[in-house]
Order: sequence, then structure tokens, then C-alpha cells
Amino acid sequence: MNRLTVVKVGGKVVEEPRSLAAFLAEFNKISGNKILVHGGGRSATEMASRLNIETKMVEGRRITDAAMLEVVTMVYGGLVNKQIVAGLQGLNCNAIGLTGADLDLIRARKRPVKEIDYGFVGDVEDVNARELRLLLNENVVPVIAPLTHDGSGQLLNTNADTIASHLGIELSSHFNVRLVYCFEKKGVLANPDDENSVFFELSYNSFLEYKKSGIISEGMIPKLENGFNALKNNVGDVLITNVGNMSYGKGTHLILRD
Amino acid sequence: MNRLTVVKVGGKVVEEPRSLAAFLAEFNKISGNKILVHGGGRSATEMASRLNIETKMVEGRRITDAAMLEVVTMVYGGLVNKQIVAGLQGLNCNAIGLTGADLDLIRARKRPVKEIDYGFVGDVEDVNARELRLLLNENVVPVIAPLTHDGSGQLLNTNADTIASHLGIELSSHFNVRLVYCFEKKGVLANPDDENSVFFELSYNSFLEYKKSGIISEGMIPKLENGFNALKNNVGDVLITNVGNMSYGKGTHLILRD
Repeated sequence: MNRLTVVKVGGKVVEEPRSLAAFLAEFNKISGNKILVHGGGRSATEMASRLNIETKMVEGRRITDAAMLEVVTMVYGGLVNKQIVAGLQGLNCNAIGLTGADLDLIRARKRPVKEIDYGFVGDVEDVNARELRLLLNENVVPVIAPLTHDGSGQLLNTNADTIASHLGIELSSHFNVRLVYCFEKKGVLANPDDENSVFFELSYNSFLEYKKSGIISEGMIPKLENGFNALKNNVGDVLITNVGNMSYGKGTHLILRD
Repeated sequence: MNRLTVVKVGGKVVEEPRSLAAFLAEFNKISGNKILVHGGGRSATEMASRLNIETKMVEGRRITDAAMLEVVTMVYGGLVNKQIVAGLQGLNCNAIGLTGADLDLIRARKRPVKEIDYGFVGDVEDVNARELRLLLNENVVPVIAPLTHDGSGQLLNTNADTIASHLGIELSSHFNVRLVYCFEKKGVLANPDDENSVFFELSYNSFLEYKKSGIISEGMIPKLENGFNALKNNVGDVLITNVGNMSYGKGTHLILRD
């Protein structure tokens, strides 16, 4: 099977022109098929504030009313996505920018209202791997914004970490998939104050222990849960790393057994 | 040759949810391969105003400084484009939203500064018909936002009428192309005050005469020039019409000879 690298890159890295350029140069070095899933939350919050739209977050998740959906559609689907695409094309990388609505790639269900009404937030239901494979077979590099749709005309805001994990899982029957979560740190740290205390490997059992003891911080938990879920569902390798180490495959590799 | 309909739809029609839904239902009725090119100028002007960015127009063209380029990238590439795509998917039409940067579809050259500095405005240089044909052969419907790139990482703002004309011309060696300019009126009017004074056909010589005598109004002139240019370059049929008549092929057909 051909190798496929699915990279999820977080907010800050892609939202400043200089760090974006550095990231794209590193991303472009990854050989074989690849997909980029990006965030853009900080830019969305800033744009909302300029438009006098209040940002409400619950446990790190954005409450997405109609006005906020317009903001994330503009910022994720337009501004961030198209700047990445133009940047990659400038490096001779044949990128295409997509949301889950394009080609019906990712269908989601509007999250049911329980204690919290998240608004137009979607939980992934179905990934259209066929259309993605057609693009990958043409050596096209899909650049995916964290937006999905419900199949009835409604766009939905969906977490980028989760999208990356779902894409990796669905494509793992046709590719040998590496899933990379790229962020500011070199990997998962044993000691948050020591940038060099990177775990080379992190097992699921250790993760559960570190989670309980508080060694692994709150923000990392959903990312790691998405990563372990991908590993359990046929993704070959899950790597947590930073921009500089990404193309070398260096950082924290998740493993299922100790 | 298979038939291909390239529809350019103007601002107001796609910028209000109700008229957008009506338009998409009509567009979806067009049989055979199709491409939609959309505008979004009114929404961009409104968004710019909400962000305290001044809109400057010269002869109907938008001066696009860095701040305005961000606005049009968000509004054309994100908001308008993705709402159209989600709407078409809701009608079981397999749409994909694209700019000229995606798949390197449309390269443009930043307009040289003469008397006026238009800023990040691009004049079309090259259309990548191969990639568009791959999509069309999969029965995918490309939805094109009026943005291009220079191949070196820079997005550029480009007139949608011109993009539609270039796409029609480039694809006319592989398809029997009809180019449709869809706007508020039933066609080109002999008398602007009489909605029913629609020309069934308009020849190039008559156009030149009506232009000279002022019967054809300023706003229509670039549209008609783009249309006649397409006709001269192998496009089979150019139609100026409104939403209700679009799928029936009714309106003003341009012709080269009287």
C-alpha cells in the first residue's frame, strides 16, 4: 500500500504569514501522498471580535450561532484555506482547498442540544473516501478546512483534530496512513516546563495514568484521544510533533501496548 | 462533443438566502456538464464596511489593497462559495468550490500600475483545462469564486465575468460550450424602462451601434464584450438572461453576424 500522511496543523502556526511559510516548506518535504487539515480558531476569534460578535467557548469548543458560523465559514473556508493553497501552489505542490461540503466529502450531524446548545456544530458521520482517493491518485494534495455539512444545505463547524482522525481511519484501508498532529511543542512532554522531556513513545495505558495524575494537560487530552482512536482503527502511526521535526517523523509516537 | 454550460451569476442573486435557493434550484435543472462562476461584490462591500475598510471603485472595478484582498478572500472564497456548495449538495448536485489557486486552475498576472493602482487585481493568463476536465468527467460541478493566483503564493482578485469567458473559451476544444450570464433582467433590453423589450438576438455590429448611441448601458458593456470575445473564440452560444429563463435557454443570444 502507498503511504499517506495526514497532517493536522493548529491555529498559531498557520495564522501568521512567517510561521505559515515555514510550515508549508516543511509540509512540502513530506514524500508520498498527503492531506493537510488546518484549524484557524484564533483568526476566527479575532475576526468575530472585529465584527462585534462575541466568542463563547465551552470546554475549548466554540459555540457556533448563525453569526459565528458565517465567521468560521469565511475564516476557515476562505481566508486560512486559500492562503495555504496559494502558498503550496507557490511551492509547486498541487493543493486543492476543500471543506466537508465540497464533493460531499464529510457529512456530519448537528450536535443534539443537551445541557449545552453548541449551535451549528457537527459531529462527523460519514467520510467520502472514494472522492479523496481520486484526488490523491492524481497527486493532488487536499487542504481541508474544519467545516462539514449535513447533506441538506447546512454547513457545520467541526473540530479539526477529529476530522484528521476520521480521514486517517477511512483512508487506512487503501493507504498505509501516518497521522501527524503538528503544534508548538516537540511532542507530548513528561514535564510541561521542560521542552526536552519529550516522550519518544506514549502507550495508551501510560496516557490513562498521566491523565489521571494530571501530568498530561487538559488541552492535549482530546488530541490524544483522537490519536489513540485512530490507532485502534487501523491507522499505522500517530505522531505528535512540531513543525521542525514533522517531516523527519520525530516526536511522540502513540502506541497501543506498553 | 458533450455539452457544457458555464453560468456566471451576479451579486444580488447569490447573496440573499431566498434568491440563492431559487437560483440553485434552476441551475440544478441544467442538464449535462456545468460550471458555476459567482460574484459577491455586494457582500464584500458590506463586510468591508463592517470592518471599517473603505471600498474604492474605479469604473466598476474594486481597488484591492491588502486589507480588501483579505475581505474578498473570506467573502468570495469562503462565505459565498461554501454556501453555494452546501446548497447544491443539498440538491444532490456534486459541487466542489474552487478558486483559481486550487489545482492551479487559473493563473493571473497582477495588473501593472499605470494611472490607477488596482492593487491585488489579476488579469487571467492561463486556465488549466486539464484539471477541470477531470472533475467534469466525474460529473462534478465546479463552483468558481472570482479569485486567481500568480503561481508564487499570491492570491489575486479577478472579475467573475472575465473568468467565465476564459473558462468557456479554454474548454471549448473539448465541449460544446454555452456561456450564460445570469443577472436580474430577462436579457439585453432595447429600452431599459421596458422589461419586455428583450433582444432575442444581438449581433456584434448592433452592439457597437447601441453602445455608441447609449442604448446599451454602461454596466452591460464589459459583460457583452466578454461574451462577444467568447463567441469569437469558439464558444458555441452566449446567452444573457435571468434566473427563471436560464434553464430554458431563453434570453438574449449573442451572434457575430447580422
